Amino acid sequence: MALTGKFEPLDSGQVPRFAGIPTFMRLPLATPAEVDIALVGVPFDGGVTNRAGARHGPRELRNQSSLMRRVHHVTGISPYDLVRVGDCGDAPVDPISLATSLESIGAFYADLREAGAVPLSAGGDHLVSLPILRGLATGRPVGLIQFDAHSDTYDSFFGNPYNHGTPFRRAIEEGLVDPKRMVQIGLRGAISDAGNYDFANACGIRMIFIEEFDRRGPDDVMDEALEILGSGPVYATFDIDALDPSMAPGTGTPEIGGITTREAQRMVRRMAGLDLIGADLVEVAPPFDPSGLTAVTGATLMFELLCAVAPGVAARRSAQAGA
Amino acid sequence: MALTGKFEPLDSGQVPRFAGIPTFMRLPLATPAEVDIALVGVPFDGGVTNRAGARHGPRELRNQSSLMRRVHHVTGISPYDLVRVGDCGDAPVDPISLATSLESIGAFYADLREAGAVPLSAGGDHLVSLPILRGLATGRPVGLIQFDAHSDTYDSFFGNPYNHGTPFRRAIEEGLVDPKRMVQIGLRGAISDAGNYDFANACGIRMIFIEEFDRRGPDDVMDEALEILGSGPVYATFDIDALDPSMAPGTGTPEIGGITTREAQRMVRRMAGLDLIGADLVEVAPPFDPSGLTAVTGATLMFELLCAVAPGVAARRSAQAGA
Amino acid sequence: MALTGKFEPLDSGQVPRFAGIPTFMRLPLATPAEVDIALVGVPFDGGVTNRAGARHGPRELRNQSSLMRRVHHVTGISPYDLVRVGDCGDAPVDPISLATSLESIGAFYADLREAGAVPLSAGGDHLVSLPILRGLATGRPVGLIQFDAHSDTYDSFFGNPYNHGTPFRRAIEEGLVDPKRMVQIGLRGAISDAGNYDFANACGIRMIFIEEFDRRGPDDVMDEALEILGSGPVYATFDIDALDPSMAPGTGTPEIGGITTREAQRMVRRMAGLDLIGADLVEVAPPFDPSGLTAVTGATLMFELLCAVAPGVAARRSAQAGA
Amino acid sequence: MALTGKFEPLDSGQVPRFAGIPTFMRLPLATPAEVDIALVGVPFDGGVTNRAGARHGPRELRNQSSLMRRVHHVTGISPYDLVRVGDCGDAPVDPISLATSLESIGAFYADLREAGAVPLSAGGDHLVSLPILRGLATGRPVGLIQFDAHSDTYDSFFGNPYNHGTPFRRAIEEGLVDPKRMVQIGLRGAISDAGNYDFANACGIRMIFIEEFDRRGPDDVMDEALEILGSGPVYATFDIDALDPSMAPGTGTPEIGGITTREAQRMVRRMAGLDLIGADLVEVAPPFDPSGLTAVTGATLMFELLCAVAPGVAARRSAQAGA
Amino acid sequence: MALTGKFEPLDSGQVPRFAGIPTFMRLPLATPAEVDIALVGVPFDGGVTNRAGARHGPRELRNQSSLMRRVHHVTGISPYDLVRVGDCGDAPVDPISLATSLESIGAFYADLREAGAVPLSAGGDHLVSLPILRGLATGRPVGLIQFDAHSDTYDSFFGNPYNHGTPFRRAIEEGLVDPKRMVQIGLRGAISDAGNYDFANACGIRMIFIEEFDRRGPDDVMDEALEILGSGPVYATFDIDALDPSMAPGTGTPEIGGITTREAQRMVRRMAGLDLIGADLVEVAPPFDPSGLTAVTGATLMFELLCAVAPGVAARRSAQAGA
Amino acid sequence: MALTGKFEPLDSGQVPRFAGIPTFMRLPLATPAEVDIALVGVPFDGGVTNRAGARHGPRELRNQSSLMRRVHHVTGISPYDLVRVGDCGDAPVDPISLATSLESIGAFYADLREAGAVPLSAGGDHLVSLPILRGLATGRPVGLIQFDAHSDTYDSFFGNPYNHGTPFRRAIEEGLVDPKRMVQIGLRGAISDAGNYDFANACGIRMIFIEEFDRRGPDDVMDEALEILGSGPVYATFDIDALDPSMAPGTGTPEIGGITTREAQRMVRRMAGLDLIGADLVEVAPPFDPSGLTAVTGATLMFELLCAVAPGVAARRSAQAGA
Repeated sequence: MALTGKFEPLDSGQVPRFAGIPTFMRLPLATPAEVDIALVGVPFDGGVTNRAGARHGPRELRNQSSLMRRVHHVTGISPYDLVRVGDCGDAPVDPISLATSLESIGAFYADLREAGAVPLSAGGDHLVSLPILRGLATGRPVGLIQFDAHSDTYDSFFGNPYNHGTPFRRAIEEGLVDPKRMVQIGLRGAISDAGNYDFANACGIRMIFIEEFDRRGPDDVMDEALEILGSGPVYATFDIDALDPSMAPGTGTPEIGGITTREAQRMVRRMAGLDLIGADLVEVAPPFDPSGLTAVTGATLMFELLCAVAPGVAARRSAQAGA
Repeated sequence: MALTGKFEPLDSGQVPRFAGIPTFMRLPLATPAEVDIALVGVPFDGGVTNRAGARHGPRELRNQSSLMRRVHHVTGISPYDLVRVGDCGDAPVDPISLATSLESIGAFYADLREAGAVPLSAGGDHLVSLPILRGLATGRPVGLIQFDAHSDTYDSFFGNPYNHGTPFRRAIEEGLVDPKRMVQIGLRGAISDAGNYDFANACGIRMIFIEEFDRRGPDDVMDEALEILGSGPVYATFDIDALDPSMAPGTGTPEIGGITTREAQRMVRRMAGLDLIGADLVEVAPPFDPSGLTAVTGATLMFELLCAVAPGVAARRSAQAGA
Repeated sequence: MALTGKFEPLDSGQVPRFAGIPTFMRLPLATPAEVDIALVGVPFDGGVTNRAGARHGPRELRNQSSLMRRVHHVTGISPYDLVRVGDCGDAPVDPISLATSLESIGAFYADLREAGAVPLSAGGDHLVSLPILRGLATGRPVGLIQFDAHSDTYDSFFGNPYNHGTPFRRAIEEGLVDPKRMVQIGLRGAISDAGNYDFANACGIRMIFIEEFDRRGPDDVMDEALEILGSGPVYATFDIDALDPSMAPGTGTPEIGGITTREAQRMVRRMAGLDLIGADLVEVAPPFDPSGLTAVTGATLMFELLCAVAPGVAARRSAQAGA
Repeated sequence: MALTGKFEPLDSGQVPRFAGIPTFMRLPLATPAEVDIALVGVPFDGGVTNRAGARHGPRELRNQSSLMRRVHHVTGISPYDLVRVGDCGDAPVDPISLATSLESIGAFYADLREAGAVPLSAGGDHLVSLPILRGLATGRPVGLIQFDAHSDTYDSFFGNPYNHGTPFRRAIEEGLVDPKRMVQIGLRGAISDAGNYDFANACGIRMIFIEEFDRRGPDDVMDEALEILGSGPVYATFDIDALDPSMAPGTGTPEIGGITTREAQRMVRRMAGLDLIGADLVEVAPPFDPSGLTAVTGATLMFELLCAVAPGVAARRSAQAGA
Repeated sequence: MALTGKFEPLDSGQVPRFAGIPTFMRLPLATPAEVDIALVGVPFDGGVTNRAGARHGPRELRNQSSLMRRVHHVTGISPYDLVRVGDCGDAPVDPISLATSLESIGAFYADLREAGAVPLSAGGDHLVSLPILRGLATGRPVGLIQFDAHSDTYDSFFGNPYNHGTPFRRAIEEGLVDPKRMVQIGLRGAISDAGNYDFANACGIRMIFIEEFDRRGPDDVMDEALEILGSGPVYATFDIDALDPSMAPGTGTPEIGGITTREAQRMVRRMAGLDLIGADLVEVAPPFDPSGLTAVTGATLMFELLCAVAPGVAARRSAQAGA
Repeated sequence: MALTGKFEPLDSGQVPRFAGIPTFMRLPLATPAEVDIALVGVPFDGGVTNRAGARHGPRELRNQSSLMRRVHHVTGISPYDLVRVGDCGDAPVDPISLATSLESIGAFYADLREAGAVPLSAGGDHLVSLPILRGLATGRPVGLIQFDAHSDTYDSFFGNPYNHGTPFRRAIEEGLVDPKRMVQIGLRGAISDAGNYDFANACGIRMIFIEEFDRRGPDDVMDEALEILGSGPVYATFDIDALDPSMAPGTGTPEIGGITTREAQRMVRRMAGLDLIGADLVEVAPPFDPSGLTAVTGATLMFELLCAVAPGVAARRSAQAGA
């Protein structure tokens, strides 16, 4: 199928960036069936144990994504020339009920998958990655690349197994993610208990702490990560708190001493060869972001992720078309 | 034509207020031909002589209008039951060229008028009322009710006749507004020159300064205003700086000692019997509004204006349908 | 029992207001059994349907309460000379589970009641008034005076009966509050549905909307309110959104056109003769309060409420001592 | 002496308000000998007992005073046509030493007085009124009109007699102010001790609390105040915390329930007939003023004070010229 | 000519940094003829296509420049000992007219040049570099070193050839800059069109993208830059968005992944040997800078630029004196 | 003595981080005699020569320290398992009198020392290190490791020997610190006078400027620092302005181009082997910290310092117990 030009961002030489309805990347609103890649918001932060606010993330990420442009200046990737990308709105959530929201989000992503759209999502807190994975990963555990200050493999909090510190433990237990094909980059910060990483270690997750990262640098770390992830399907999740809080203060659980945006961009660009079934950018909490910088950063990383996801999606579509 | 229910705001019991694409009042996007009342943004502040920022007004007013509800609790007016209301997007503007923007905005409103949609607009600086009036007022000067700290009937600034201090002088000169059917409420603040109000006085504009307003109260003032405006077509313009800056700090030219929101709401509700051909809410400047209160206030006044405009529009439509 | 001087605020002539651990009013930490009036935080906002943040309310109210002084300048009431007042910490909450939190908050207040301490609480969202009432109102419905922009007598939201729009409907249904001895002051704002107030009207709640309030003034309104409340036990709840958002922008659901602080203070002072079994100040949401004004306002109203509650508590204690 | 036009604010039709060096009211820098009225900053807040920041007041008041215009729209007073007004810079202060600063500020004002310039000053905390009065009031106690939430007649704080709660007690003790010709308007807020006002009452200061003010209104209150002040020399001091903190949040000791700007403007305008020997506007603390509103309010009140001071200065100059 | 000591910053041991009129670096106001280096503001942002605000840059840069000191701690350069430096105020601008402003700014800089003053300017948006160059570069194209996230060599925007994305294309076309002696450092961010850099490449501009910069480091990059610039006259322009937005969030078009201040300072210090005919620091937009950090950063870079410009100016002056 | 478990932070799985009274690290309040390490606030900024605000530092550091956890993820150090740590409140200060405060702070620390508690303090401005050292260093000059943008070895300011630019000159002169065992890391920024560092150089302080630091890196620098400090008693002081202001904007004297948090953490961890008699973290000024990041950073560094201090304290206690 030839691209029609319908799924193009507004041209900032025709419509100024501050004008118009703020969809993601100033793209048209679309149904999942119309697009190859669906930009989606998941405005849910009921899994947050301290500072809520990520429920407002999708809206502010849409707002600041108006600053984005069309063509990646380093890789030359122009996602809108490769695939159809649209804003498919927000997953349905219930701000009062965690259980209902997990259900409705999961169903929404299952529908996306069936419609053939690869989702690039904006959280929401990190718990939303769990129902996303439930919707996407069917019948086979996928690989996972996670940029994060925290492993998010705790067992429970207040006796509750579902919160933003536990999604990937649940995902492993539910067979959605293969811990042997799982890499976490940027972990840091004090821990509540010396055994916090025991589960992750036991099941074989490759955890790359900031101290190791600092020593090796982004390229060497990504060499290893890509090898671990291999050629099978992979999901990518970027918690904005992986970044140094000077670059992303508006988040629920900031940890100083983080990854710089330069390093992060370098790493995300390396992911373009992966077989990505989806990606998300989570934990942007606008009420804690007076300068708006966190949302600008998050929107830029969503564009970087889009450029990483698009080539693979285009290739699969071509393969299908040829089949 | 029966209302179909299509032009309804999202139900906050189904979709939380922080979710979804921020259209005005969470209404559907629509073309002018589809609606009776068109909510429109005019993201232009090229007429500002000091603090710019109102170009970002439409977007933030849309954002905060998600807090609005359906039914007016005092008048019982439920605009969405009376008429079809939709978000018709933003008027086209050129941030670099004042002349081009005046042109394109005017043309946009002429199209709206021809499509039969009554516009309720969000500025932008106050200069945008001029091209709106050019688009709407054809062949007959209309009445004008203006809530404002400033008369905006200066002659020029830097030798330039088009800026946010001059729109109503130009509108009178161009025969768009009848100064004998024109009321300004809330004027105040020091003036640049003792003759600042000479033009307004000479052509018969009824200027109600805050001191007179303070003495008489909103009801008495509106009694007089409604009498002056009479039964002919009227345009309503609400500069957010009419309000006290404690209630609307985010504006380009704040003047202390203004109208309270309680007083303003009381007055706007009195306008429901006017033959309104359109209304606007201007000069909300989000970069100067750290708490977001100004946009909340502006969005609420837009809802009040909508409830003032809707009954007349419904009546005219009925009359046309009956004809 | 003579007051020992132990339950005194820190003297700002000895310890500057910015120094020291921020307890409520700079009072000592205490157990319920040690005090007559317990200042308590309820850091829970799981009942919020839009903008969360009131979970941080108790901490910031404590912080700003350092500005408070000892003696009421109008009534001359000096609460710390009348009764023992201490900071009894926060009610236990579970940020992930609404049901668990309702349970644990209710139990905490039942304990307070059994210990003989009258609670003055800082929310949290308005749902917290429900478990507070469950803890306090045993065996008899109490009267209720509520300052609020919203009636909070909705039936449900997202099909969920427990959220910050429903607490007083539940309280009435559960027999905790007598709707015939219930007054709501400051209601305003558009409504979601023309029938929003049907329940409140049907069961006899006296709702005083801002328009009536504006016409009659605080004294006349309180004359009526006090008559309705009568001489039986009364609970007082002050939602900070009763106030105009210029005076309290940091709240989840701001409504323009509200009560001024001058009016509010005048009304709260009239409550000193009531038989108050407790009071709360809710919905202060610090993440939306960049200037800190909302918390200053909330802390001052807590002091006003304390001066309204203390005389009755002192009288009851004297009566008991005399018995 | 005819006015030369030299002491004119920059014309905002020639130089935009955001341009140029921010002197007070965009006036020329001048020496005291060159002007009739000297606008002066006193960047000292060493007398603050809680939240410092007023040291930055003069700079931010200068910055926001760029919004001011030339002619008073109600009284028609055009100060720059009546007298020579200039920005005479800041009084010298030592941020580390309270004693040195009291000395240097006092000497600076004595010099101003000798040069024949009437000072309109921008604080700084309220303690700065003491050295100002020392410099101005020589050989005769003057009358005082004080707008303030606090009486500032405490005896000491931390055993220190000089701080922002004590200036007017010291001024009375030093014979600078005649307490029988002294009026305080807007007092409110809880007090540290039931005897806080004993000194003020004992020496005959007329204290008008907000509750009395609320009942009588600004005109009635000013009638009485003007009678008390009489025809002798008067100093005027306006603590920005007299205003409601919704209109002036950026101050060290905010008290809710204050005077509105409308009321304040009405009162200051009544002062034009007094024999004013100087005036000040104090306690604007920019670090606590994220929206900048407090400085806008303060700058506007400085213009109102200027219009109150100018006619008397012009009259005295004429009288001297005629003598 | 011996330096008289007249052109000295205020001594912060005599006048605290928060006191006094905020001129650049707390220097005296001066006419161009009085100084060797003129610090100048250009408060114009009419060339901005998205977020305006840089019109307020000069004022806030002056404000924060009060934090600057006298002597460079690394190079030992003490500019005020080498040359006469003063604040020459702001270039005249018309906020409503781009054409008029380009004209008046250009004329102002031509006058500066004729008066023999080398300008160090504070923008304003980047378009202001064009009229500055028109004023300075007469009869010979100069070299250009540009720190920037964007090449600013677009052709037009909205069909308009003059905006903040086009100044250097115009400057090359007008023969003001020699593209062969032009280096751009820090370029990054997605582009609107794959051909965005075609013009720059075609005419030989050396563009050093952040990825190359990251690999080579500031010293190696500057080695090359200095070689390209050679010994002829050079103009230096520093767009604050060259820096990482964590260090300079308050700008119109932030791009993550930028140059750190440490790297920037290292590079600017290398420029001391160039034959600099002027320099500017642009795109500081205070309304988007809640912490004030961007202006502190900008003011510090202005001091660094001053230390880079001063030695050459001193040398030229000596040479002229000797001639 | 076995640890009792009494001196444990609140468990965030039982009490959410936003709940409860904000003591340092959510530890119990304690008297000095009860603990091995005393966390203490020194809310004094009377030594500040420009932007005050650090008086509010202890309160906000306590507030944000609620985000801290128990176990250091790199070193494995779990301070609460090694020693008894409690919040011992604030040192007494007098906000009006510098002399009184120096006295009372010094006495407080002498008491701490006698009680056997090692203090980890939160400032306050940097002058507070002087009275702390007076209290701790008795009879022998100690070594000093100082992270700072400024040497703080000026002689005086405004003729006053006690301010935040002079503490370490005074400490050396008073024999509290041995300049030969003194290292300063992170110095940078322009200087007021070419001789600013003469004293420091003359007495042998090892000053490591940011340029040298940038070249050598944190490990090499710490190798040298540890050698200089040797095995004797050492005091550690961390001025938050040592960090880059992107990571710590809320401070009185920001200097761009600073140490990153990654580098700082790496260095502080190297200090665990020193014989530390105390440590402080100073100059966090909340009024200049709109995002709260500076306090988060400061609280994290306090935890890092705690992990550096605890092993030595534990070892000394063991040695004493064994003796």
